Amino acid sequence: MKHVVIVGGGFAGLNAAKALGNRKNIRVTLVDRLNHHLFQPLLYQVAMAALSPAEIAAPIRHILAKYRNITVLQDEVVDVDRKHRAVIATECTLHYDYLILACGVKHTYFGHEEWEEYAPGLKTIEQATEIRRRVLNAFEAAERSRDPARQRRHLTFVIVGGGPTGVELAGAIGEMSHHTLTKDFRNINPRLARIILIEAGPRILPSFSGKMAAKAAEDLKKLGVQIRTSSPVTGIDSEGVLINQERLEAGAILWAAGVQAAPLGQKLGAEADAMGRIVVEGDLSLKNHPEIFVAGDQAFFAHSHPSPLPCLAPVALQQGRFIARNILAETAGRRRRQFHYLDKGQLAAIGRSKAIIELGRLRLEGFWAWVAWLVIHIYYLISFENKLFVTLHWAWSFFSFRRGARLIIGKEWRFYRGSK
Amino acid sequence: MKHVVIVGGGFAGLNAAKALGNRKNIRVTLVDRLNHHLFQPLLYQVAMAALSPAEIAAPIRHILAKYRNITVLQDEVVDVDRKHRAVIATECTLHYDYLILACGVKHTYFGHEEWEEYAPGLKTIEQATEIRRRVLNAFEAAERSRDPARQRRHLTFVIVGGGPTGVELAGAIGEMSHHTLTKDFRNINPRLARIILIEAGPRILPSFSGKMAAKAAEDLKKLGVQIRTSSPVTGIDSEGVLINQERLEAGAILWAAGVQAAPLGQKLGAEADAMGRIVVEGDLSLKNHPEIFVAGDQAFFAHSHPSPLPCLAPVALQQGRFIARNILAETAGRRRRQFHYLDKGQLAAIGRSKAIIELGRLRLEGFWAWVAWLVIHIYYLISFENKLFVTLHWAWSFFSFRRGARLIIGKEWRFYRGSK
Repeated sequence: MKHVVIVGGGFAGLNAAKALGNRKNIRVTLVDRLNHHLFQPLLYQVAMAALSPAEIAAPIRHILAKYRNITVLQDEVVDVDRKHRAVIATECTLHYDYLILACGVKHTYFGHEEWEEYAPGLKTIEQATEIRRRVLNAFEAAERSRDPARQRRHLTFVIVGGGPTGVELAGAIGEMSHHTLTKDFRNINPRLARIILIEAGPRILPSFSGKMAAKAAEDLKKLGVQIRTSSPVTGIDSEGVLINQERLEAGAILWAAGVQAAPLGQKLGAEADAMGRIVVEGDLSLKNHPEIFVAGDQAFFAHSHPSPLPCLAPVALQQGRFIARNILAETAGRRRRQFHYLDKGQLAAIGRSKAIIELGRLRLEGFWAWVAWLVIHIYYLISFENKLFVTLHWAWSFFSFRRGARLIIGKEWRFYRGSK
Repeated sequence: MKHVVIVGGGFAGLNAAKALGNRKNIRVTLVDRLNHHLFQPLLYQVAMAALSPAEIAAPIRHILAKYRNITVLQDEVVDVDRKHRAVIATECTLHYDYLILACGVKHTYFGHEEWEEYAPGLKTIEQATEIRRRVLNAFEAAERSRDPARQRRHLTFVIVGGGPTGVELAGAIGEMSHHTLTKDFRNINPRLARIILIEAGPRILPSFSGKMAAKAAEDLKKLGVQIRTSSPVTGIDSEGVLINQERLEAGAILWAAGVQAAPLGQKLGAEADAMGRIVVEGDLSLKNHPEIFVAGDQAFFAHSHPSPLPCLAPVALQQGRFIARNILAETAGRRRRQFHYLDKGQLAAIGRSKAIIELGRLRLEGFWAWVAWLVIHIYYLISFENKLFVTLHWAWSFFSFRRGARLIIGKEWRFYRGSK
């Protein structure tokens, strides 16, 4: 009986576990510090009040309940003891025959971690709720204010980072101010909201072709989004953003500018790229440690493809499944194979009814790209229940222009703490 | 043009606003410190992971958007200046011709406010999320532990207070441990969870008849709930509850034992009952202040009924509407009327398919009472959208035995705060 320990319940870890589920002579323990798998491609919709957290997340132990050889533990892994083949978590130590590390990435502020307080990133449900709170609170503060200059500041939204996440956030705020909120306020006109998308590089969506990026920029402008390229951010505080010497006062600042591999990877002492992603062999194992695999965003894979594989859900999903198959092959006495990524392309939604899709030479934009975007996301959603409810919510929002989850939820649950 | 200021967007405030919406010569400002109206009767289902917050709450300004004479402000009212007829909020002062106070109640620990940290109450979405986090975390901690004594402690759930909320919470935990979670764990058997409902008085559900309360107690026992009556709690700490001299170690402690009127009422200098509810006249106005009304849970109304009106949604709803009609009558030169409550009865759900209902001499229990409970709650839900999604979620849960919102969502959204 071989024991496979998987660290991380994202796309890579979850799909590795599923592929090892109910297999003979294999026992699996999946450890994650959270109790849920999160469908990250739709997280911006939670931040933008279109979906509820429970619609894009599900308890990992529930997803894997039918596999009797899998144990799920909610715990935080703090170290890996390669010599004794053990994973050390805060409350337990797990000995492994095979280890799969799939801890993903978190956002980084490039040495300015103090900016986080003023400009939340978007990687967890907690952060999505925080972003929702800030954006909706900015509209509320503008409605309360009678001073046009303060109203203008409250209604300025700055998104730092012109990748797909930044574009999707900017498009959603544009959608919200132009359609969803138009009738709800008395002192302000939400259409006057300024949405500014800041990109340090020469253009937005650098991973897409220039033509598709230009098309996206055009769609964003129609939603009232101003795009500022070649504009590296040099400072962020509670009131605004500094771009070179120019200051932008803002009601909410969102961070979508950079990611960095989870810190656990550093404990392996292995080679890593600038983002901290661990360099892996052609079979996704660690050099000199064939029993340790790294998958998903945490892995730097630069074999047999023109460029290193990007941090995308399909890469993680395929890698997780591939590692499981290699482990099954090896325990059955067969040889390991080398990983090849089947390119699933890339896509980004822009507001309520536009998207761009690129897959090799196939390029699609506008309404039908958006329909394809919908179908693809529904298809890959975690469970039948989530598929059903997200479909219904989207159908409802599309026809009513409404957003079902416009709740400002506070951080503090206690009544009496302040009164002591 | 008369200006009506409403403080509080609960059942009373919202229904007063609606009844004044788009009426001539009336201008309304509704102030609430939260941006959403909350359908409190279903809040325990959010705490118990059956529904998402957005399904039982909606932005107040969105509900009232079609009434062009209503302005909604998210702000906290800190004082009432009766002499100058002004409401003082943190960011603005509002002058009124009529004032409607409908701030509701919060839970109270009878002088032991330090217990709150260990035993959250259930009045807000934040508290519901906190309770959900604690209950689900207790199951996770039990699964991680290898020590039977600690597992037993983690799997002990204590609910303090045998009113409808305590009964509904206990029933829902029973349901969860007996049905929802049974296949998801490997080290523990969720069915072994101990659920202890503690009541200081001689029986649970004192507002119901003895026969119905006994029936509810029977149904609770079938779900594994132990009921301990005549058991006043004398201490609560992070590890458990003290009842007289006996100690109960617990994995999660929930508070459903008492409520107290919102503190703003004290600023009126008016007569109040032991719970801090403001004593009102027959037309729900304040003595010597016919321009100030108090409605809902915050009001103590003891006219023309055998006993003072209880803190129930139908009371608040009827009172809010009634006050609006009196204001409209008075501004049209007609006389005010006296409030009469049309009794809508009371009801409580027990687990997934049982309920009790009492309305005068009509008594209903078991499955059909539960069906009636469903229909009534759906009927009164805030919007068509909420009705639709709650109905679908309930249908889904009923047939699948699942709970759609089993997410443990943390309090902290920052990654980098600890690393500074």
